[in-house]
Amino acid sequence: MSEPQKPTTVTTGPVEGTRKVFSSAPGRPDLVVPFREIALHPSANEPPLWLYDSSGPFTDPDAAIDVAAGVPRPRAAALARRNLVTVAPRPVRPEDNGNAANEKLVAECSAPHTVYAGAAGRPVTQLEFARAGIITDEMIYVAHRENLGRAAMAEGARERRAEGESFGAAIPEFVTPEFVRDEIARGRAIIPANVNHPELEPVIIGRNFLVKINANIGNSAVTSSAAEEVEKMVWAIRWGADTVMDLSTGRNIHNIRSWIMRNAPVPIGTVPIYQALEKVGGDPEKLDWEVFKDTLIEQAEQGVDYFTIHAGVRLAYVPLTARRVTGIVSRGGSIMAGWCLSRHRESFLYERFDEICDIMRRYDVSFSLGDGLRPGSTADANDAAQFAELETLGELTKVAWEKGCQVMIEGPGHVPMHKIKENMDKQLATCGEAPFYTLGPLVTDVAPGYDHITSAIGAAMIGWFGTAMLCYVTPKEHLGLPDRDDVKTGVITYRIAAHAADLAKGHPSARLHDDAISRARFEFRWEDQFNLGLDPDTARRFHDETMPKEAHKVAHFCSMCGPKFCAMKISQDIREEAARQEGMEKMSEEYHSHGSHIYVPADHAADD
Amino acid sequence: MSEPQKPTTVTTGPVEGTRKVFSSAPGRPDLVVPFREIALHPSANEPPLWLYDSSGPFTDPDAAIDVAAGVPRPRAAALARRNLVTVAPRPVRPEDNGNAANEKLVAECSAPHTVYAGAAGRPVTQLEFARAGIITDEMIYVAHRENLGRAAMAEGARERRAEGESFGAAIPEFVTPEFVRDEIARGRAIIPANVNHPELEPVIIGRNFLVKINANIGNSAVTSSAAEEVEKMVWAIRWGADTVMDLSTGRNIHNIRSWIMRNAPVPIGTVPIYQALEKVGGDPEKLDWEVFKDTLIEQAEQGVDYFTIHAGVRLAYVPLTARRVTGIVSRGGSIMAGWCLSRHRESFLYERFDEICDIMRRYDVSFSLGDGLRPGSTADANDAAQFAELETLGELTKVAWEKGCQVMIEGPGHVPMHKIKENMDKQLATCGEAPFYTLGPLVTDVAPGYDHITSAIGAAMIGWFGTAMLCYVTPKEHLGLPDRDDVKTGVITYRIAAHAADLAKGHPSARLHDDAISRARFEFRWEDQFNLGLDPDTARRFHDETMPKEAHKVAHFCSMCGPKFCAMKISQDIREEAARQEGMEKMSEEYHSHGSHIYVPADHAADD
Repeated sequence: MSEPQKPTTVTTGPVEGTRKVFSSAPGRPDLVVPFREIALHPSANEPPLWLYDSSGPFTDPDAAIDVAAGVPRPRAAALARRNLVTVAPRPVRPEDNGNAANEKLVAECSAPHTVYAGAAGRPVTQLEFARAGIITDEMIYVAHRENLGRAAMAEGARERRAEGESFGAAIPEFVTPEFVRDEIARGRAIIPANVNHPELEPVIIGRNFLVKINANIGNSAVTSSAAEEVEKMVWAIRWGADTVMDLSTGRNIHNIRSWIMRNAPVPIGTVPIYQALEKVGGDPEKLDWEVFKDTLIEQAEQGVDYFTIHAGVRLAYVPLTARRVTGIVSRGGSIMAGWCLSRHRESFLYERFDEICDIMRRYDVSFSLGDGLRPGSTADANDAAQFAELETLGELTKVAWEKGCQVMIEGPGHVPMHKIKENMDKQLATCGEAPFYTLGPLVTDVAPGYDHITSAIGAAMIGWFGTAMLCYVTPKEHLGLPDRDDVKTGVITYRIAAHAADLAKGHPSARLHDDAISRARFEFRWEDQFNLGLDPDTARRFHDETMPKEAHKVAHFCSMCGPKFCAMKISQDIREEAARQEGMEKMSEEYHSHGSHIYVPADHAADD
Repeated sequence: MSEPQKPTTVTTGPVEGTRKVFSSAPGRPDLVVPFREIALHPSANEPPLWLYDSSGPFTDPDAAIDVAAGVPRPRAAALARRNLVTVAPRPVRPEDNGNAANEKLVAECSAPHTVYAGAAGRPVTQLEFARAGIITDEMIYVAHRENLGRAAMAEGARERRAEGESFGAAIPEFVTPEFVRDEIARGRAIIPANVNHPELEPVIIGRNFLVKINANIGNSAVTSSAAEEVEKMVWAIRWGADTVMDLSTGRNIHNIRSWIMRNAPVPIGTVPIYQALEKVGGDPEKLDWEVFKDTLIEQAEQGVDYFTIHAGVRLAYVPLTARRVTGIVSRGGSIMAGWCLSRHRESFLYERFDEICDIMRRYDVSFSLGDGLRPGSTADANDAAQFAELETLGELTKVAWEKGCQVMIEGPGHVPMHKIKENMDKQLATCGEAPFYTLGPLVTDVAPGYDHITSAIGAAMIGWFGTAMLCYVTPKEHLGLPDRDDVKTGVITYRIAAHAADLAKGHPSARLHDDAISRARFEFRWEDQFNLGLDPDTARRFHDETMPKEAHKVAHFCSMCGPKFCAMKISQDIREEAARQEGMEKMSEEYHSHGSHIYVPADHAADD
């Protein structure tokens, strides 16, 4: 009998060109928010740029990372003050880990973990606090985190004001804790923050905040170890995932989750029906309320921040999918449709929804109401099945809100461009502006191997129209399991989509970021251009493939035009001339007197 | 003294899973249009799907490819009937090839080439024929090419009718030669087809036809041989480039172009100012009308189908760029701005525009009116400089139309999402609905290394809004020179953008393609899914990385869920049950009587 497997190492150290910095929320030195600082070349004559940082302590060179001990617990003090009750944890059972035993059993993470729950008669969820007019530490934290760039934008003479079209969103000039509270009280935003997840650096998800992205991890048919899963999470947040969903379905599902939770600075989501199904041997017909309820409590105690619950897949909607081109493609949706059909009765998730709310409220687990009937092809987009389920999700949103639970709504999937806005508008109207959380959508089905791209087009658009969080799609979608490179490609692609949406909506930090890199590009500050990019390593590598010499990184030209023939160089000369002159009238003569050199000789530039 | 360099081999053979087929235009057995036929698995019970094919004879296994002899000349007979005059070609001069000599000189392509020009007083351009009510062979050819899928869509009971939102475009139910003629006569579409390019398989570019994409090739600071350039063209059209621009700037520019032209089944575009600048030693101040005129004639005689002419960069607009974040980023734009500034006089391209029209009309070279002042960053989008130039392009469009020339208009560049529609609408209004031909646009600047993606988002949107052709962007944009893989990635990414636009606009062939691959996916016809994709090789490789066995290609599951846990499988069962039953009421009992097997056992499925 060998030792149980344990995670060993994960990727640490800063992203190239980035320094991790910290800033306390105003008046709250104890609430310390991390940012990425990118210092610029002295010739820029600009202060360093700060960017949002989802990567947690793993990118902090001063942090001692020990996955067996878990990451620091920034929420611990606040949770201790919150009048929660300590609960005797539900004992771990063999079926929680798929009956893995001996050398196949992954040990549980050894980090200490006290289980809390809300006390009777007291507010526990962020929604309940918000409605009671109470600003939580989490609200203060996210306000400071989201305020990024707003002061600079308001002050800066150099920057134009950000402008955009936000389709009726209410993006504030400054994000105050009170604004956060109000948005949460209205149900327009959520902070997924289980009371059993003290390691969390809180994140807000809502239409009036920065667009967030989720990355999926999880062991599947191909077994992966706890080490691999923790590293997947660390790798995904390193490149910018705001939340991570653990979609594991195999053995050791409970114990692997313990390693993920104790090392997760981001909200973790799950789909509890997957584990419930494992517990009954993979047969949907054997699923019942008891095993599902048990799974909810098990995962809530571990600290999962949001649950996908497919309670909108009602018996009556299943026949609506029969004539579809691609039927039901959501795993959870098909499980519940199979269950409803085989018993010919209403979904127990729908019938027991009140009880689900009571459990989730107790730990402040947020709902992610699953779209089990989402289209699996552009052909099926916006059809009767999809919209019938959406109506039910709207109904359930109101129930959950009454129960004090935070809610977001999952959305498609596969939608051609001309039907995306209809999806967004219908979701806002039907679900009372609860945050929308969409997968893509893919705008065409003809490019397997490139579905990060087909879906980024739809994701950018729906993010602009009002979606609060975008679930990533990797190049392997529909074909295989993403490897490390695929995860990075998926995350970067979705950061592009989210940022493009933020820019179009008029978020000041998005405008500042674009302008900073554009100036760097125009001024041939190559290192700044690399470092300000979403993926400095790839940008640097691509540059060096064509122009490998160190001298080329300070060259006032690039490989596309070469030294003799550079549009940006000519254009800089024009600008410099214009700046020197009072009027443009005198430029022609002056230009000649400088010797008409609008090109930098190649050898000179390379040595510049 | 060694032998002059000559191209040797290029990529030939069909794209995996594709058979090249041919179909004559109705009533015109001599006008033979190629298509890609994809045969499906017998279980599909579907006819083969035909797709548009831009790849030329290189993908025809029966074609004998000899780049020294050039490709076949499908237009030769039509051109011979057209009352053109034969012209003594302008002699090649040393400066045409950058004074390359001896072993540095690339030989001219040895394929025979007779130079034609329009005869006095007779129509020569497609626009002139269209206005005269004459339907040319090129119009018949493109009508048949574009009609793809329309008959199937009109007949098919199985297919839904394509529907979409086309923002005021006038996409016809059937594309007739008369419709093509009418669109060209109105200036809403062009067929770039130089009378000296008999090798061309004609392509139509216009808002009411399929969205086209362009790929750029060209030697640059880094020298590349003629063989490499021809192969770049062949490689780009293999993956779906509809036109190719040769942006070469170095030595041997004339002779390399001869190899490209004689082997090009697609329209070739150039930016003549690049070669003109080479002829004067790279100094914009030395440019003048004579050297530019000489270059226009040189390239028109070789058969170039469209010229980018930056005649909209007027002296008065240059100061409008001085306060931009990224000044002028168009090479041609900056050359002309430098020229105007240094001499402090109006652009000779603008002043001599009538004469340029007379030359281009004589060979039916289409205008691509360059946007020399396009924004180089999202910060500069839709500014005074850009829109001032666009007004001038509108004015020049009317001049060119009066002269009988075909015109399209180039567009940005870098535009955040909320400003894209304004660009499109303004172009349509300002330029009398002349086709728009845009570069991207990139919707954010923060992702160097991923600008194929940042720009595909904008390209899909602007294509949907009405752009007729999208110029591709590769992952190396802003960083380095694209290699073979980058060119393929750029082309496939832009095929995605163009196809997504076609689908949203309601083109029947786009709907058919999406539906065919969606059915293949749902029915686990893995080989069909690969072959119907834009890049069968990559799709197959990604699948095989996770599930390498040959048996897995017929497995009724995929690696994401594994055999036990497959949403699509469950969903297929639901559909089969629904189809078998008159009503859904009986399904529950019936389902049980079948033994409740909604999963296929793993070992069984793998052997299935």
